[in-house]
Amino acid sequence: MNNLLTDFYELTMGQAYFKSKVSNNNAVFDIFFRKCPDGGSFAIANGMADILEYLKNWTLTKEDIDYLKSLNQFTPDFLDEIENIKFTGDMWAVEDGTVVFPNEPVVTIKAPLLEAQLVETALLNMFNHSSLITTKASRIVRAAKGRPVMEFGTRRAQGENAAVQGAREAIIAGCKGTACTVAGKNYGIKVLGTMAHSFVQYFDTEYEAFKQYALAFPDDCSLLVDTYNTLKSGIPNAIRVHNEVLKPMGKSLKGIRIDSGDLAYLSKQAKAMLYNAGIKDAKIIISNALDEKVIESLLDQGAPIDSFGVGENLITAKSDPVFGGVYKLVAIEKEHKLIPKIKISDNPEKTTNPAFKKIFRFYDENGMFITDEIALFNETTPMGKHEFVHPEMPFRKKEITNFTVKDLKVKMIENGKQIYTVPTIANTAKHVQDELKTLWEEAQRLENPHKYYISLSKKLTALKNEMLFGNKEKDNQTNHHDSFQTNLTKER
Amino acid sequence: MNNLLTDFYELTMGQAYFKSKVSNNNAVFDIFFRKCPDGGSFAIANGMADILEYLKNWTLTKEDIDYLKSLNQFTPDFLDEIENIKFTGDMWAVEDGTVVFPNEPVVTIKAPLLEAQLVETALLNMFNHSSLITTKASRIVRAAKGRPVMEFGTRRAQGENAAVQGAREAIIAGCKGTACTVAGKNYGIKVLGTMAHSFVQYFDTEYEAFKQYALAFPDDCSLLVDTYNTLKSGIPNAIRVHNEVLKPMGKSLKGIRIDSGDLAYLSKQAKAMLYNAGIKDAKIIISNALDEKVIESLLDQGAPIDSFGVGENLITAKSDPVFGGVYKLVAIEKEHKLIPKIKISDNPEKTTNPAFKKIFRFYDENGMFITDEIALFNETTPMGKHEFVHPEMPFRKKEITNFTVKDLKVKMIENGKQIYTVPTIANTAKHVQDELKTLWEEAQRLENPHKYYISLSKKLTALKNEMLFGNKEKDNQTNHHDSFQTNLTKER
Repeated sequence: MNNLLTDFYELTMGQAYFKSKVSNNNAVFDIFFRKCPDGGSFAIANGMADILEYLKNWTLTKEDIDYLKSLNQFTPDFLDEIENIKFTGDMWAVEDGTVVFPNEPVVTIKAPLLEAQLVETALLNMFNHSSLITTKASRIVRAAKGRPVMEFGTRRAQGENAAVQGAREAIIAGCKGTACTVAGKNYGIKVLGTMAHSFVQYFDTEYEAFKQYALAFPDDCSLLVDTYNTLKSGIPNAIRVHNEVLKPMGKSLKGIRIDSGDLAYLSKQAKAMLYNAGIKDAKIIISNALDEKVIESLLDQGAPIDSFGVGENLITAKSDPVFGGVYKLVAIEKEHKLIPKIKISDNPEKTTNPAFKKIFRFYDENGMFITDEIALFNETTPMGKHEFVHPEMPFRKKEITNFTVKDLKVKMIENGKQIYTVPTIANTAKHVQDELKTLWEEAQRLENPHKYYISLSKKLTALKNEMLFGNKEKDNQTNHHDSFQTNLTKER
Repeated sequence: MNNLLTDFYELTMGQAYFKSKVSNNNAVFDIFFRKCPDGGSFAIANGMADILEYLKNWTLTKEDIDYLKSLNQFTPDFLDEIENIKFTGDMWAVEDGTVVFPNEPVVTIKAPLLEAQLVETALLNMFNHSSLITTKASRIVRAAKGRPVMEFGTRRAQGENAAVQGAREAIIAGCKGTACTVAGKNYGIKVLGTMAHSFVQYFDTEYEAFKQYALAFPDDCSLLVDTYNTLKSGIPNAIRVHNEVLKPMGKSLKGIRIDSGDLAYLSKQAKAMLYNAGIKDAKIIISNALDEKVIESLLDQGAPIDSFGVGENLITAKSDPVFGGVYKLVAIEKEHKLIPKIKISDNPEKTTNPAFKKIFRFYDENGMFITDEIALFNETTPMGKHEFVHPEMPFRKKEITNFTVKDLKVKMIENGKQIYTVPTIANTAKHVQDELKTLWEEAQRLENPHKYYISLSKKLTALKNEMLFGNKEKDNQTNHHDSFQTNLTKER
């Protein structure tokens, strides 16, 4: 990712911070989101591997500075300040593949204000895109109930990175392969594919096309059977190729793919025809505008499908294509003390959680997820018994006793140096599956899932109330526009 | 774009073509789409500049081949064949920024089958993404009725290319600037931005933040006024900074930005307050989840807005985030003769238009668009009078006399060599505006626009009917599965 992949206002703010001599003061920013895509009850966080790589190498080169100079909006002293800039701060984040919930501070950056501001846009771009596709692909994989899902969306992806990184996120979410060849080369993930309709069309007959493919790939012959007529032509020709070409070589038909028509009906008929022809192991592969809802419906109808190829609806997260992660100032450092900041909104649910924070995740004695609690960074890990307060209805409380707690965020960068080993893609994919095992299936339901509520610790609640209450008091006392603004802000 | 940004099946098909000794035969493929996004009556084609750059440099290196070899699915002779492969074919396409309609062959590739197949995925990715964003951004720009629109979506874009190339497409569609700094550096397009809420939040008071910004940018001071309360705090503080900081320097407030709340109400009140304070030239800039519908509504309400900042809804084309361009085989060459191919579908509207084709665009004596006619490639340009046949209702005919005709596609690559000069981004942006001037405003309407129907020439109609009719005849005569398949196919 380019070092100048930044909103221009990060640079204008940077110059104003620099002129005000505050640009080297530490500040703390959180990344969080307010709403899970597609009405889900959780999201799967992803993008940290890319963010770490980016922050490790991030700088502004002489060429970047020359470009900025050419705009005649920046002063030479500021441009000197940012030439060869590095990220020297700290970063805490949940690990890639972690189940996360709205309003949780999933990434926290503590760094000199100028650095923290300049990297905002790129960090949000990486976090939002990766989490979007991982969350969507996980829904599709879950709908397939253990049957392999393959990612086929490159041609409809929103650009090259969307295709290549999207393929990686699909694998992390549980897809078993991708058609995107360069993703296979870059990430070592499984690539697969057989033929398009143009291949069948090129030859004079469908049988000839199938035969040529079988001769080229006798060990891995899957045939696309819907170019003309799946049941009258495609399946009979596939059976004929099995009998006349593959069998004499000691091989057999590996699968057939259906890409149009009534997929439930055709898959049942195709399966029966293959079975009656003695081809019992050939896989039935289905594609064509699939998503989690179509897959659920096909399986509800008893369609004997072995695997699914999913394209545009996965790679663009078509049903809800924006992941709304934001990057908010939550504390500033003055004289080595962190001063919490809060943003008040007319929409109460948009009021932010102030201060430098951590996330405690509570599990029951069976390792199942109970809830998360967002706490101040210096709070100690709860033990023994613990009382949760409902974040919006403080009169609702719940006490638990048998639990274990995980401090969810990991320190990944310290003083600009990466101190965290990025897991392999396979391990991140395994982490996703392990995470899902801790969630009740009612929370994983695709429609109207059970929603967990995430609590704030008593100390964080007290701080937030004090900041909100204190501010209103001041407002009433002074009746002055600016007096109640300290520590308040709102999102872009 | 990476040379291996290709669906894996292009490679498996490639090996099967190679084994069948047909991989060097020429084939003709069209890119077309079936439906305009968002119910529009037209799309704006884009992506040719990137496609030309890609095809010029496209090859498979030793490193790519080593990766493919490692998969143990390809034979050494095939890998030898594709190592250092180049695109040696021809390409015709409409120019970037051209108004196009469903089913028109907007790009045509004539090349050895292997090459044409291997570049399919990357070409579709570039064409689909660029056309998607250009078409969406044009809708948003048109809704703003001449007021500047700025692209602010980088943080929510689907990856880096989506952000950077998306910013370029926004400018081509008529946006006046982007927040994406690297897009400014790469493409020489205008970048802009001022401040985020975090800037206002960092300082102890809103007034102090505004003052620091004014001191840093006295010549270009636009202030974000909704961090606390737009009318009670933001606008009064902006006026105070104008009077106390800018005026004494001989400068004045350039603008205010409102990013939340009731944008119609707040913009009217803010305008009045600034006016009453004697600040008559400050621009009212609006952002926050805008799209063409919100902009139309704001202007319908008489909101005195000078410019719009548009983020996620533009950069992801959120309301319809997939552009469905496909790449279809339309002819193959045998013994130096092109043999047309057609794909028949159970959905009549999905039956393709066979053969190597061109597009004639008809204008009336005032230069206004009449219609397009898709014709065989060797048809001569119509002159004098011309009769159109309705593509679905052949009994409906229309004759015109006073017209001029443009052959819409341009030969851009010949024998692998680019023979077309890519216009500057500014000229492509101008081309979009020139194109729109030829369309009746009823066709540009955002809701339920007038839809032009696009005709087929009589010769193409005759060929298509003969291929459809001929095939059915054969089927009736022989009652054999394969006999009616010659020349038929369907899309992925």
